[in-house]
Amino acid sequence: MPDRKLTRDDLRKAAETYKNWGKWGADDEIGTLNYTAPEDIVAAARLVRKGKVISLALNFDQFGPQGAKTAYPVPGRINPVHVMLRTGCDAYSGVLDKRGIRAADDMVTMALQCGTQWDGLGHVFYENSMWNGYDCREVTSFGAQKCGIEKTKNKMVGRGVFLDVARALGREELDDGYPITNADLDKTAKANGVTVKRGDYVIVRTGQMERCLRNKSWDGYPGGDAPGLAFETLEWIQRNEIAAIATDTWGNEVRPNETEPGINQPWHWITIPMMGLTMGEIFYLKELAEDCAQDQTYEFMFVGPAIPITGAVGSPVNPLAIK
Amino acid sequence: MPDRKLTRDDLRKAAETYKNWGKWGADDEIGTLNYTAPEDIVAAARLVRKGKVISLALNFDQFGPQGAKTAYPVPGRINPVHVMLRTGCDAYSGVLDKRGIRAADDMVTMALQCGTQWDGLGHVFYENSMWNGYDCREVTSFGAQKCGIEKTKNKMVGRGVFLDVARALGREELDDGYPITNADLDKTAKANGVTVKRGDYVIVRTGQMERCLRNKSWDGYPGGDAPGLAFETLEWIQRNEIAAIATDTWGNEVRPNETEPGINQPWHWITIPMMGLTMGEIFYLKELAEDCAQDQTYEFMFVGPAIPITGAVGSPVNPLAIK
Amino acid sequence: MPDRKLTRDDLRKAAETYKNWGKWGADDEIGTLNYTAPEDIVAAARLVRKGKVISLALNFDQFGPQGAKTAYPVPGRINPVHVMLRTGCDAYSGVLDKRGIRAADDMVTMALQCGTQWDGLGHVFYENSMWNGYDCREVTSFGAQKCGIEKTKNKMVGRGVFLDVARALGREELDDGYPITNADLDKTAKANGVTVKRGDYVIVRTGQMERCLRNKSWDGYPGGDAPGLAFETLEWIQRNEIAAIATDTWGNEVRPNETEPGINQPWHWITIPMMGLTMGEIFYLKELAEDCAQDQTYEFMFVGPAIPITGAVGSPVNPLAIK
Amino acid sequence: MPDRKLTRDDLRKAAETYKNWGKWGADDEIGTLNYTAPEDIVAAARLVRKGKVISLALNFDQFGPQGAKTAYPVPGRINPVHVMLRTGCDAYSGVLDKRGIRAADDMVTMALQCGTQWDGLGHVFYENSMWNGYDCREVTSFGAQKCGIEKTKNKMVGRGVFLDVARALGREELDDGYPITNADLDKTAKANGVTVKRGDYVIVRTGQMERCLRNKSWDGYPGGDAPGLAFETLEWIQRNEIAAIATDTWGNEVRPNETEPGINQPWHWITIPMMGLTMGEIFYLKELAEDCAQDQTYEFMFVGPAIPITGAVGSPVNPLAIK
Repeated sequence: MPDRKLTRDDLRKAAETYKNWGKWGADDEIGTLNYTAPEDIVAAARLVRKGKVISLALNFDQFGPQGAKTAYPVPGRINPVHVMLRTGCDAYSGVLDKRGIRAADDMVTMALQCGTQWDGLGHVFYENSMWNGYDCREVTSFGAQKCGIEKTKNKMVGRGVFLDVARALGREELDDGYPITNADLDKTAKANGVTVKRGDYVIVRTGQMERCLRNKSWDGYPGGDAPGLAFETLEWIQRNEIAAIATDTWGNEVRPNETEPGINQPWHWITIPMMGLTMGEIFYLKELAEDCAQDQTYEFMFVGPAIPITGAVGSPVNPLAIK
Repeated sequence: MPDRKLTRDDLRKAAETYKNWGKWGADDEIGTLNYTAPEDIVAAARLVRKGKVISLALNFDQFGPQGAKTAYPVPGRINPVHVMLRTGCDAYSGVLDKRGIRAADDMVTMALQCGTQWDGLGHVFYENSMWNGYDCREVTSFGAQKCGIEKTKNKMVGRGVFLDVARALGREELDDGYPITNADLDKTAKANGVTVKRGDYVIVRTGQMERCLRNKSWDGYPGGDAPGLAFETLEWIQRNEIAAIATDTWGNEVRPNETEPGINQPWHWITIPMMGLTMGEIFYLKELAEDCAQDQTYEFMFVGPAIPITGAVGSPVNPLAIK
Repeated sequence: MPDRKLTRDDLRKAAETYKNWGKWGADDEIGTLNYTAPEDIVAAARLVRKGKVISLALNFDQFGPQGAKTAYPVPGRINPVHVMLRTGCDAYSGVLDKRGIRAADDMVTMALQCGTQWDGLGHVFYENSMWNGYDCREVTSFGAQKCGIEKTKNKMVGRGVFLDVARALGREELDDGYPITNADLDKTAKANGVTVKRGDYVIVRTGQMERCLRNKSWDGYPGGDAPGLAFETLEWIQRNEIAAIATDTWGNEVRPNETEPGINQPWHWITIPMMGLTMGEIFYLKELAEDCAQDQTYEFMFVGPAIPITGAVGSPVNPLAIK
Repeated sequence: MPDRKLTRDDLRKAAETYKNWGKWGADDEIGTLNYTAPEDIVAAARLVRKGKVISLALNFDQFGPQGAKTAYPVPGRINPVHVMLRTGCDAYSGVLDKRGIRAADDMVTMALQCGTQWDGLGHVFYENSMWNGYDCREVTSFGAQKCGIEKTKNKMVGRGVFLDVARALGREELDDGYPITNADLDKTAKANGVTVKRGDYVIVRTGQMERCLRNKSWDGYPGGDAPGLAFETLEWIQRNEIAAIATDTWGNEVRPNETEPGINQPWHWITIPMMGLTMGEIFYLKELAEDCAQDQTYEFMFVGPAIPITGAVGSPVNPLAIK
């Protein structure tokens, strides 16, 4: 990594270096999720030893991170608006009885990236291209004709590896702007007693979300400064052939970004469209961190199925660590 | 089961007979999901032998079952409306470049019971009560103050048992109006070489959905006649202490219902508010049926996490059978 | 008006005093809108003298007043979420050409009371009753079976009278908490050279909205302290037999309210369900105030048709003052 | 008009012929709405003689025309989904009392072109251009940066002229596919005793909607065959310098279109982007037709304010004929 702001030229080189286009065939739409082989899933299931399930999701409601103060608002990213179509109060009032059943129903309007979520491979473009070299115009107002999140519907199962970087570095939480380096990741893996393998779902904790939850304020969380993965981790990710990576921050990578002005989220420019890396964001890691610290077991079965909304470029998810 | 139409009095007796209120404490909000013990989860994981993941979800889109012709429309139950907040065409047009990244985003508006889904315990009331004796007025326009689907966020993991009733009865699909009896369930379990146990997630196939998919029409599926569980299966469910049950139909139970006029979905009157049974509906079972027929293994690890929308009475889900 | 906090008993007396139930027949669903007679509409049209149209609406977008800081949040009242279904960027990208036309389309999700709006007569209940004595259970999750806003679809046309109270009292804007009295209304009418008549649409300016617009912050506006109509104005309204009243505040009446704790918006308790008064809120009055100050003409033709959303208890509106 | 299918070359010539770009300045965003002068508004108000208001809107609800069978579905154009945020049943159940007021609230999700509506000038593009020569890329996923419907907020007021073509041609309704010619329009005006003038809002009745309402089916209405304005009426519209035109059909112009395959809604290609003509669609004209037939007065004051949703390319509207 050069000791200077990254330029568009640096990104262009990285794009070439980490380009996995065609690796899984010209028709592939799921990228690095291919790394997880059936035997990896069998092995992952063997990691279930105490029968404990830990959800890595925030609840989806009006108290989510969207709408907080931010220097970088994302148009339309609203917290979920959950409305009832029928209620118990309707039942109590007797107005449902003509239907022969007293039942409640509901509806939600939500930005698919509003809370704990997967970035699909249609989420970010490099110039005019998306993953595997598809034209970015495959993602129209009618949705993603290629790489829709529904293509992952039987993926998102494998070995989960938890890298509690904050803890390994002796911190309650990493500072905003702290770039997590390859060395940090390796040091954490060693401290946590795990070896990252091909096809893993790697989950990285910065502690930032817990600070927000403690402070009861998301201000600055969505689009603000944050600890996160350094641009150089592209190399670590590519070398380790992981299936997916997720963190407890809004955008996984360090902010302010390591780039010259005008380049936002440079790591995303490469991970999604060039590598084909599926990424999780806004993962809730407090309980997982406590459990792993307690039993000193930082690997588990990971299951985090996307909701297969046809043509979606992301999905809310309730990811489970099953230990 | 009496050889006559069920009356409100029959339902009242069943409500008393199958009432599990208080069984898991006065504060319980998840009912029969409590049946699954940690050791059951460990054992379920041992069923993962070939590393194959089968999604039991329909894709969520405008081609879903809602909006089809039905004699029993459910107000507001729309198919998902998926809209883009930013697109690859925006990227191509150059209008995103001022944001420093070419990214797409999206949003969905969906009835939570529009497709493959869990009924939460706030979904149905018996008279003025919901599960565990809570007052039905706990489910207001502000959502379910009790038994919201988010309470299940670390559940929905266990042993899956697939009962392919249609196949066991030698049928491609059961006829609309066919009531699946306790004897049918037992016969199917025997034919499929499985024994149902406490804490299982039982998945029952009628074949009805596959007929709709073949015919490319959902007319009659949502709220129309259907094969499904007979009222007597309440006894089977209670005796077997299962965690949850799901089918490939709109409403699990047989339609026309076995009741006198004015009583709709009588089995639901009991399962949800009295037993505390979580139920899955509109599960897509074609691939699972083919796989189980092929490997003759009708048990597997089941993972179907709800999206924890606070106060929701249901949730879309991408349930996974992991074999 | 007693020189003490209003009690529930005071409200009960006011409810009886200002009760118009049955005045326009047992089936009436539009209340005081009945006051405007055809000849009033003809006369109102004669007030159009310079052919100038002044919109009294805020634009509907994410910069509206909802979501601002407030001690009294109203669940679900979101600013409009406007999304595109097709765009010019799709057109430019060539992806629409297979449709044979290059066209954009759009969609909105909005709380009906999020911006410039009418409160319909289904909006507020007195105990278990709504306007004209209908049972409050007529407003179910399926919408308002009585007094839906669509019942007003050919109303909201008449003489508009503008009472610029802030200006008449020599203020740029009234202070939060300032109660506008009957005497203030009369003084303003006199200052503005107008006489309020039966069937008028009376529009009252406090100046509060303009302060928010100047400060570029809606904090405190929705549900916070505000100048507004005193409880005693019920008498003025009833006596003058006006069709409707509107202001530039969130809730028309003075806040903090003049009531004992536990009673919120006491004036609303009476106006809507007892009087049957249609009310406008969040009207944008800056341009109208400037124009009226300039031409010293405070009467005009008023046209503000509700969008006839069946069963709605309110409606966004673009009210027009036509001079 | 050539006696053959119109080609892209014909459209190109028409685009040049009817191009009003720059006519109202390089910055104009409202096109032909400029034709209506203040004195026209004053004169229009003088047409109010009996004080009768006739709404030209369908109610907005799930029974609207969207979702009907059509060979030409428009993605995302759903009927309004109206949901309650609080209800009278909540009130009755006592769950609102902690808020100190018993009030109902609601929300809508609707395609802006789902029912009675204005097409904004951002709705249709000619090649890469929109009205006044703006680049089509001004209409992004963030909305219309130019020509948003909010720019019309103090327009849509003027003289309304009703051309009941069906009646003038002695028909209950025109046949699907019937092209209304310039001669038909002139004949109707003569029969109806009106002269079309500069700045008018012209409303044309085909009777098609009433057939749908009678048949209680919208099948074929949205995007299907329809009577409507012939391509040649571009000349009539341009010559008469009208402000806007509206009909009771889904898309104003005749369908099947008069064009070669691959060209859909050719008249729209010209009216909106080239002429800058605002158009109304799905206007409900039954009551207006009856009233005009009865009093033989086919002119009136027209007021149909758009809801100023920022950046919208259309708007629901409750247009009023005030006689």
